[in-house]
Amino acid sequence: MTRTPEHLLRSTVEAWEAVRSHAPLVQCLTNSVVTTITANVLLALGASPAMVDIPGEAGPFARVASGVLINLGTPTSEQREAMREAVSAADDAGTPWVLDPVAVGSLPVRTALAAELRRQRPAVVRGNASEIIALDGSGAGGRGVDATDGVDDAVAAARRIARATGGVVAVSGPVDVVTDGAEEVRLGNGDALLTRVTGGGCALGAVMAAFAGVHDDRFEATVAAVTVYTVAAEVAATRAGGPGSFAVALLDALDGLDADTLRTRAVIA
Amino acid sequence: MTRTPEHLLRSTVEAWEAVRSHAPLVQCLTNSVVTTITANVLLALGASPAMVDIPGEAGPFARVASGVLINLGTPTSEQREAMREAVSAADDAGTPWVLDPVAVGSLPVRTALAAELRRQRPAVVRGNASEIIALDGSGAGGRGVDATDGVDDAVAAARRIARATGGVVAVSGPVDVVTDGAEEVRLGNGDALLTRVTGGGCALGAVMAAFAGVHDDRFEATVAAVTVYTVAAEVAATRAGGPGSFAVALLDALDGLDADTLRTRAVIA
Amino acid sequence: MTRTPEHLLRSTVEAWEAVRSHAPLVQCLTNSVVTTITANVLLALGASPAMVDIPGEAGPFARVASGVLINLGTPTSEQREAMREAVSAADDAGTPWVLDPVAVGSLPVRTALAAELRRQRPAVVRGNASEIIALDGSGAGGRGVDATDGVDDAVAAARRIARATGGVVAVSGPVDVVTDGAEEVRLGNGDALLTRVTGGGCALGAVMAAFAGVHDDRFEATVAAVTVYTVAAEVAATRAGGPGSFAVALLDALDGLDADTLRTRAVIA
Repeated sequence: MTRTPEHLLRSTVEAWEAVRSHAPLVQCLTNSVVTTITANVLLALGASPAMVDIPGEAGPFARVASGVLINLGTPTSEQREAMREAVSAADDAGTPWVLDPVAVGSLPVRTALAAELRRQRPAVVRGNASEIIALDGSGAGGRGVDATDGVDDAVAAARRIARATGGVVAVSGPVDVVTDGAEEVRLGNGDALLTRVTGGGCALGAVMAAFAGVHDDRFEATVAAVTVYTVAAEVAATRAGGPGSFAVALLDALDGLDADTLRTRAVIA
Repeated sequence: MTRTPEHLLRSTVEAWEAVRSHAPLVQCLTNSVVTTITANVLLALGASPAMVDIPGEAGPFARVASGVLINLGTPTSEQREAMREAVSAADDAGTPWVLDPVAVGSLPVRTALAAELRRQRPAVVRGNASEIIALDGSGAGGRGVDATDGVDDAVAAARRIARATGGVVAVSGPVDVVTDGAEEVRLGNGDALLTRVTGGGCALGAVMAAFAGVHDDRFEATVAAVTVYTVAAEVAATRAGGPGSFAVALLDALDGLDADTLRTRAVIA
Repeated sequence: MTRTPEHLLRSTVEAWEAVRSHAPLVQCLTNSVVTTITANVLLALGASPAMVDIPGEAGPFARVASGVLINLGTPTSEQREAMREAVSAADDAGTPWVLDPVAVGSLPVRTALAAELRRQRPAVVRGNASEIIALDGSGAGGRGVDATDGVDDAVAAARRIARATGGVVAVSGPVDVVTDGAEEVRLGNGDALLTRVTGGGCALGAVMAAFAGVHDDRFEATVAAVTVYTVAAEVAATRAGGPGSFAVALLDALDGLDADTLRTRAVIA
């Protein structure tokens, strides 16, 4: 099956309305730089964040959460243990989880962990082009969290990862690409200011976990997450005087989003 | 003795002026999601935050701090050790400390720690209804940090905790209740936007520690903390276009608060 | 050699333009309260932040980073190990690194670590007067992160540290002093609101690491970092209604800074 852009727009609006009405509980095991913006993005979206990331609690919570985010940005030893626990429990309980392999490639601890977790079949993998290429084992990774490769270079890697995990892979960039290994869509919303605020990308991983928690079709859920988040970013950019006011406006825009704005602005191809 | 609303309003203004003039040093051992907003709320209030939360330093610092906050939101093993150290030292030195039992109930690590710390008689316990009920052992706890019980359901639990600790318990909600086990007051200020910003509740725990550091009467200090914080939130809400701008406006409002606004807006019953 | 104010202004503008064009990669091992604002300040400045602070990764990354920040605000055991690793690797690879000895003096863990790291010759040391005096071993330290000593009291201590490390020492305060042990300059920009926002000082340490990464003369690089940051703070203060809106405006001002504003506003003596 190939979904039409019209179908994806419809499912995006429905999935967004489901997030609003169900307030999915999103467990975040994420890096220490972006915890606040991640939680605030989820709250503004209408989801319910919970940063339960210690061993002994991460597993039990992953069983009851709607979705789980595993972000490898600052993986302390205790958090790595909690991540393994959360992923096993999520797997066992059928909770969808998102892997964000931040800065994998040359950094040894996270790169090994990402390879290990990838084998446990994340529902969604989100990264920039360099991270996706590195996770696929086909490149050298980026420079910290910055992508040094283009989105197009990463599409083949994304497809391979998606086929191996049976999940969905999203490559973030000026144009976002979402693939399940068979089908592929390009999403044209967003604003460069998202790259000028720390957590601009990481918070999207949490948004994907929220959408995966309310919409069973992973591909559609991921398209919806990217579209809702990047449309809100566009609205925010129109009100921002720089990266500081943009981060504030992004939360207001996510909170104030309506279906009409979503339908009018969405660029799905 | 039963304090009148007029008395409590007067002591609220006095305690707030004491925070402004003494800049109490507030040691925060708190969760990784809310460190920034907690420190910024204290600074805007006129207090002096210090996040000293490692073993070997947490104890010595608790001896010289004006007040200590113990928030169980993301309790790593190292932080748990530091919390025990800080509480013992605070106890020994007579430093008032506040316990915020975030999401206790079903999460095993923090629930056990909260029960242990509770026996060391916190000056103030702050939580939402579900957390207070869970800390009392009379309920199942909430869903992550969200309260699923109403404030009224929690009042009996709050009274029992207050009598057992000899301290004060504050139940946060649309109406806040403060009790010392004998007396009780309802505080009607605030805005729903406080629940749409991460740390909106957690930062209040730190504000309580600041007030406990300058005003010996724990009941009055806690009433003052809730009233000052929630009045500032109301002022901020009038200037906010959503949760992002609300968080910014909350800091400006705490900074710009004056006694007249406090007196005019305070709803103490 | 003694640099004239005119020379320092010229090198400040050049160094700032170099940061903009080279986007130096700044590795931050910093405290849990200020990670977000630190990363956002670097992004707004035009640098590229990376919070790589775990053992096994901190060392390798310090070899490729343009500059490294070591901030002792909340030094967990794992972070202390990572700091030692990063400093050794930076030393070996010739990567300039900045030491911010937050609240050293009476707190035993960080005070010992600061003394140890100081012997490894940081390119730049940044602190308030109390911290610099404490690091020199000539005072008792401040009250948490607040300076209780004046900048002038710290100048002799700063000179001694600079001579011992062969680097530069910057004392933050209403007037900032930068010294290399021989030469000395006073920088008069800034705004008191910087002390009302958590990370207002800590983020400057990261800015210094960014400038040290693009400009070989450490003295000039540090003067440039202080001047750019405090001029942006002045611009931000003109647009702020309190500490909340100031923090937002600071990021917008760093992003929107131009050479003319820098030249017109800089107060270098």
